[in-house]
Amino acid sequence: MASDPLNTVTADVQLFTKDHPLSFAKGGQLTEVTVRYETYGTLNENKTNAVFVCHALTGDAHAAGQRDGEKKPGWWDSLIGPGKPIDTDRFYVICPNLLGGCQGTTGPSSINPATGKSYGLGFPALDMRDFVSVHRGLVSHLGIDTLLATIGGSLGGMQVLQWALDAPQDMASAIIIAASSRLTAQNIAFSAVAREAIMRDDGFSGGQYVDEGTSPDTGLSIARMMAHITYTSEGALWDKFGRSPQNTDLSGDLGVDFAVESYLQYQGETFLDRFDALSYLYLSRVMDYFDPFAHDGACELLSDHPVPTLVCSFSSDWRFSSRQSKRIATRLERAGVPVTYQEIEAGVGHDSFLLEIPDYLELVGNFLDYRLEVAHDSSR
Amino acid sequence: MASDPLNTVTADVQLFTKDHPLSFAKGGQLTEVTVRYETYGTLNENKTNAVFVCHALTGDAHAAGQRDGEKKPGWWDSLIGPGKPIDTDRFYVICPNLLGGCQGTTGPSSINPATGKSYGLGFPALDMRDFVSVHRGLVSHLGIDTLLATIGGSLGGMQVLQWALDAPQDMASAIIIAASSRLTAQNIAFSAVAREAIMRDDGFSGGQYVDEGTSPDTGLSIARMMAHITYTSEGALWDKFGRSPQNTDLSGDLGVDFAVESYLQYQGETFLDRFDALSYLYLSRVMDYFDPFAHDGACELLSDHPVPTLVCSFSSDWRFSSRQSKRIATRLERAGVPVTYQEIEAGVGHDSFLLEIPDYLELVGNFLDYRLEVAHDSSR
Repeated sequence: MASDPLNTVTADVQLFTKDHPLSFAKGGQLTEVTVRYETYGTLNENKTNAVFVCHALTGDAHAAGQRDGEKKPGWWDSLIGPGKPIDTDRFYVICPNLLGGCQGTTGPSSINPATGKSYGLGFPALDMRDFVSVHRGLVSHLGIDTLLATIGGSLGGMQVLQWALDAPQDMASAIIIAASSRLTAQNIAFSAVAREAIMRDDGFSGGQYVDEGTSPDTGLSIARMMAHITYTSEGALWDKFGRSPQNTDLSGDLGVDFAVESYLQYQGETFLDRFDALSYLYLSRVMDYFDPFAHDGACELLSDHPVPTLVCSFSSDWRFSSRQSKRIATRLERAGVPVTYQEIEAGVGHDSFLLEIPDYLELVGNFLDYRLEVAHDSSR
Repeated sequence: MASDPLNTVTADVQLFTKDHPLSFAKGGQLTEVTVRYETYGTLNENKTNAVFVCHALTGDAHAAGQRDGEKKPGWWDSLIGPGKPIDTDRFYVICPNLLGGCQGTTGPSSINPATGKSYGLGFPALDMRDFVSVHRGLVSHLGIDTLLATIGGSLGGMQVLQWALDAPQDMASAIIIAASSRLTAQNIAFSAVAREAIMRDDGFSGGQYVDEGTSPDTGLSIARMMAHITYTSEGALWDKFGRSPQNTDLSGDLGVDFAVESYLQYQGETFLDRFDALSYLYLSRVMDYFDPFAHDGACELLSDHPVPTLVCSFSSDWRFSSRQSKRIATRLERAGVPVTYQEIEAGVGHDSFLLEIPDYLELVGNFLDYRLEVAHDSSR
């Protein structure tokens, strides 16, 4: 076996059972919830160096490192690894696949043990609080009292925010990147079109496509292609593709002809191999409904237990703009939370949070370094 | 019959025949091309008051006035009518349905007289120059030597630009609104997703859906929903819908729940009644390929015969931004054309060109008034 400098552990754990079911925030229960997670690095003796990573809409538990035979490393390999901002030589990093997902954790396309068929649209409606319930179950399973930090981008950042509001005592700090505390009408509109494309695909079979042996491939790839445009920026697409033809000349017909078309089609196609249509529906819907500050007293717990928080956005992100990140920062600050807000200059839109941007890596790295200093100091 | 203050005439004319076929810029011929057009107002004796209106992607010949039984007036009723900027008491206004369209003019879903079946994907590839060929045929049919002005928004503005480059002697002035001389990679990407949605719909039947009795309704409405988001602005959607539920409360399920979702779905549904999927493919593709300034000597004719031109954009238009309009203006100015460029402050994005925005109406009205003065003066 090749040496693994990240000390990667991949595991499945059944966190909820018949005797200890998962109750959903909006109603419903599941008596079997398995969670797939990965860890990197080593938990120190005092258990003060754990960093919990929450993934975005189409992420998974495989955040870092490159397995044999894989074309690409984990989705956040830019940030996680030896000597990187989330330094696996010093931190113990935990990243689970989300409840409702499709990469090892129980989701709507999983088999319902009560029926022997996939849950389909019978899967309970999801809420951001349900993700937090499951994350907390995993932390407890790992025997950790207090996380050094929770961190996530996009939907991952929303989980961090919800967690900080629901159970601030679980974490010594929080990092919320390229997120939103309240989707705009435009955000919801884009998601709505994606969901329409999926649900109106004949292969969707009313959500029971796993059992029917069909698949809403067209709808899911259309959804992905459209979403991908919104994850990047006008300038980034121009810099990368301009008006270049995919082949030597423009053919002039209706099919794929420009390089940008070919790229988008590739994004749509490859997405089918790694993602599930029902997971897309359920997870994107959680984002639409997320609006934690709309509730009176949302910040009460956090005010009593203020968690130092880094909020970070990217200048060219028009899907979740800096305005949306600033709203999170100001609401938290108003609740008495020590907040650092930083907009990173970056040209590639929302997906910047996945990329190796020096100012960004430095910001996250410095914040975590300091949190570790504080943790060491308080345990001395 | 009710009196019609616009003096509307609706007519079909067969502009191209076996003896006089239409040759397409990219190759191919059609031996039968019928054009549906409307006119408003009266052509003066010297034939110096004609304003030619070019419609956008999903427009048609019915630009102004409200017919009995119609819910809405023509698509540019905000600008065209008695006392309006394109004043039908003073101007003779011509608006044809586009070649390749689906509202009376020959298009890909028309019946090919040679086969008795619809043209489908056998319809020749379209180019902006083909629109100009047909427009010129119509002007000639109407016995007009020189148009007082050509005017259009979005794809309509692109036709005006192409026409000014190809045959500047046809017009005494030109008005190009919310257009682009070269789509960005992002523009092309949005169109590509729309076309994918249509062509991958099983009802598309390889483009022969008219003959097969199927229809790519899902694909076409998905295309429209997505496009509609890009025609408006984030702020306009927020002002109109915010996060309001469609009904009293948010239900929390995956279907239509937010008001913005219901609105978008309505846009997608009603579009099916008035538009054709093949027309959408063909006309949107013309825009992708449009890049007139890429050709050496593109401005030669126009430099010899400079046409006073108004170029106008809208501040919140992110589909065809002010930057794109400015590119048109500066290229024309460099060719020696007298150009007026104006950005109108407006919050509703690309669709602003269809709306009653006082500064905009005044700008267009004043420009046309002055062109009429000049025409009168030179004919005195």
